Amino acid sequence: MTSYSPLTPAIRSVIAQHLSPGAIVTDAQTITDAATDASNLCYPPEMVVRAQTVANVQALLRLANHYRFPVIPRGGGSGLAGACLADRGGVVLSTRGLNVIRGIDPANFTMEVEAGVISSRVRQAAIEHNLFYPPDPAGMDLSTIGGNAATDAGGPACVKYGTTRDYILGLEAVLPSGELLNTGVRTRKGVVGYDLTNLLVGCEGTLAVITALTLKLIPRPPATVGALCAFGCMGDAMRAVARIMAEGHLPSAIEFLDHRCLELVGEMLPFALPGTRPSLLLIELDGLEAQIVPERATILELARAEGAATTFYAATEDERQQIWDVRRQVSLRIHDHAALYIPEDVAVPLSAIAQLVDALPAYEQRYGVDIFAFGHAGDGNIHLNITAQHPNRKPEVMAGVRALLQMVLSLGGTISGEHGIGLAKREFVGMELPPGSIDLQQGIKQLFDPNQILNPGKIFP
Amino acid sequence: MTSYSPLTPAIRSVIAQHLSPGAIVTDAQTITDAATDASNLCYPPEMVVRAQTVANVQALLRLANHYRFPVIPRGGGSGLAGACLADRGGVVLSTRGLNVIRGIDPANFTMEVEAGVISSRVRQAAIEHNLFYPPDPAGMDLSTIGGNAATDAGGPACVKYGTTRDYILGLEAVLPSGELLNTGVRTRKGVVGYDLTNLLVGCEGTLAVITALTLKLIPRPPATVGALCAFGCMGDAMRAVARIMAEGHLPSAIEFLDHRCLELVGEMLPFALPGTRPSLLLIELDGLEAQIVPERATILELARAEGAATTFYAATEDERQQIWDVRRQVSLRIHDHAALYIPEDVAVPLSAIAQLVDALPAYEQRYGVDIFAFGHAGDGNIHLNITAQHPNRKPEVMAGVRALLQMVLSLGGTISGEHGIGLAKREFVGMELPPGSIDLQQGIKQLFDPNQILNPGKIFP
Repeated sequence: MTSYSPLTPAIRSVIAQHLSPGAIVTDAQTITDAATDASNLCYPPEMVVRAQTVANVQALLRLANHYRFPVIPRGGGSGLAGACLADRGGVVLSTRGLNVIRGIDPANFTMEVEAGVISSRVRQAAIEHNLFYPPDPAGMDLSTIGGNAATDAGGPACVKYGTTRDYILGLEAVLPSGELLNTGVRTRKGVVGYDLTNLLVGCEGTLAVITALTLKLIPRPPATVGALCAFGCMGDAMRAVARIMAEGHLPSAIEFLDHRCLELVGEMLPFALPGTRPSLLLIELDGLEAQIVPERATILELARAEGAATTFYAATEDERQQIWDVRRQVSLRIHDHAALYIPEDVAVPLSAIAQLVDALPAYEQRYGVDIFAFGHAGDGNIHLNITAQHPNRKPEVMAGVRALLQMVLSLGGTISGEHGIGLAKREFVGMELPPGSIDLQQGIKQLFDPNQILNPGKIFP
Repeated sequence: MTSYSPLTPAIRSVIAQHLSPGAIVTDAQTITDAATDASNLCYPPEMVVRAQTVANVQALLRLANHYRFPVIPRGGGSGLAGACLADRGGVVLSTRGLNVIRGIDPANFTMEVEAGVISSRVRQAAIEHNLFYPPDPAGMDLSTIGGNAATDAGGPACVKYGTTRDYILGLEAVLPSGELLNTGVRTRKGVVGYDLTNLLVGCEGTLAVITALTLKLIPRPPATVGALCAFGCMGDAMRAVARIMAEGHLPSAIEFLDHRCLELVGEMLPFALPGTRPSLLLIELDGLEAQIVPERATILELARAEGAATTFYAATEDERQQIWDVRRQVSLRIHDHAALYIPEDVAVPLSAIAQLVDALPAYEQRYGVDIFAFGHAGDGNIHLNITAQHPNRKPEVMAGVRALLQMVLSLGGTISGEHGIGLAKREFVGMELPPGSIDLQQGIKQLFDPNQILNPGKIFP
């Protein structure tokens, strides 16, 4: 493993000389905050730099190569995989100070935005021009658009609109050498050279520090409508999802909650749940109101034909928001439910969702855990929240996690649909990627970052 | 420049020993066919290998490293940039023999297909399961799905559906070393490690030989309707495109023809064209018939509000096909029109299309060329067909091409929206990509292919 220099007073002093005044943040709260993200990991960095300019990013990386200290880029710190944590010491580099929306071009459906802008602000800025930025990761009020790009963040809207990657036309990024790189295009298409944009998207800050993005926007859907469908079992719910999509409908969200999640939030629903192991679908459609209102009725008919015991239309925007509140409360209540909480986010082929969820009780029993499953049914992306009542049971719980991931892979799935690898899932990467692929990826890392100063040790086992 | 070994009789004999019987094709016609694509370039290869198995591809690449001869992958040979030509000699490796559709999974909306399957067969196979593979490059009856992936092929449907890249979940590919690599996932989402899939897509066969693909399919749109709108000038037509899209409509094609194209095919239209410099929009919508028929009416109203002199509904499927015949005839007639023909396919921001087209007469006059512009108005992708009556005027014409591309870049555009670089546009790449980006890309090439045996010399200046 590469060895790094500690940040001696002399090095700290040189860093200060090369950055904007105020870029080095020294208060204890900032250091403490930078030690964690939304995973359960904790690694206090030696220093936090809040870049004021792109030149600050360049200068810091040049110094990191000279003195050999790690630099760990950090956006909103809402990641679930520890990708922004300083487990090898060094400098956490916050991009939050790069927070200018450089411009919106409504005629061309594009936005130029700095990496530190909060994702929900990007969405809001688009709406002000009657445009739409579709990706909607759960943490979008906390996460930065640069962090979303670095992790290729997903969300409920992916089923219709795709992930963050699909809305990035080009990037401005600082390479580990400190050199500024512009990738991609400002047009809707472009095939000149290798796709460096997509290589940087999802690299979890290991290949470059993204400083600005050219986003692709779409016209704002004029209306959104919501609905709920309750089923007596998961199999029926998944058959309904398959049927709805096979008939050509493309909802802007098809979320599901399993019976364990419904034990936590069922009382928030406007109806009683059927049976002992109920399952819930939350469906939204967006588009022209004249099209989506009748389409919702058609979809709910399909759901009833596949066994939905109860269907519910959100009649008002308030009711639609109440539906989302149920979905949001699930995560919070799971988190509060148990002392030990491992958030996995696998994805499986659509046809395998019910099989996966039906297999969970056996794992619960064998490994002494409670597993809460919810997620994005429309693209097979399932958040498996594995909990135990005692934190000291972690080794046994992790054995259960590994066994679960093995089953996911045997179903043709992937160990991460949207959270990424970071530190938290590093030990499992070799289960999915063959050695040749890992070697090639590490070769790319070495090409970009020969001194391994940028977010070292993330992703790879 | 790397030097290569000629294919001596001894090397030919070793190649034959390592491949399936019949993999080496020796007839003169095959060699002649492999010397050209849809560009005007011609380079006969020393040998053509038609891989019968993935193991053939692996064996050939291992031998190429051992003996140092170039291997140039070739799909349908319908590319416009010379990317599949053996300008440095060596072996043209046809993937056409890898032509099995390995499986279609309707429940999961995926297809596993070998690289040599013709693109239109992929589309047809999907339709047989009531599914849809959206990309529709002009040459899809000739091109292979692997070639489409290697060039990230576009087409009229991109405006709604995106390019080939957007329908590739994973790849099976042989690295230049001969090692087999599987990238990506079989699920709708996946964020484990670097995005090698998107790195190979669009690499024009320089980083790996794609041997099979996992494609993402969508439900088949139940209906398609078409229309034409004729305008007195390009500015009005482009304002109509902007207005249609800004109002939230997303046609499955918005093609345009400029007045020069209309001089060639105007007589095929069911109406007289307005003015001396008319412009035509060809619009299609797909989806549920009950939605798209009224939507087409709304769109044509918007077109008339922006100055369309004539609008025309295709009342039957025959009439819709006749509209496409007009569009298809344009390319053929341009090709027949002149002795010298340079097909460029720039993309510009939507707001700059009219400005670009309006500037063309000045270039025509200055460089003594006729420029026929048509293309995908909805994503700013314009095919500029630059012609001259005498082939010996090529140096002057190429100076005109360079000047045009410079203007495209100054408008925020790219020199290639879908054809790629290959050999034909290599000399212009440095106009668009900065040296740092080219260095990095060449570093990636060197990492994948240290002996530069796979499609050497393509893309980079």
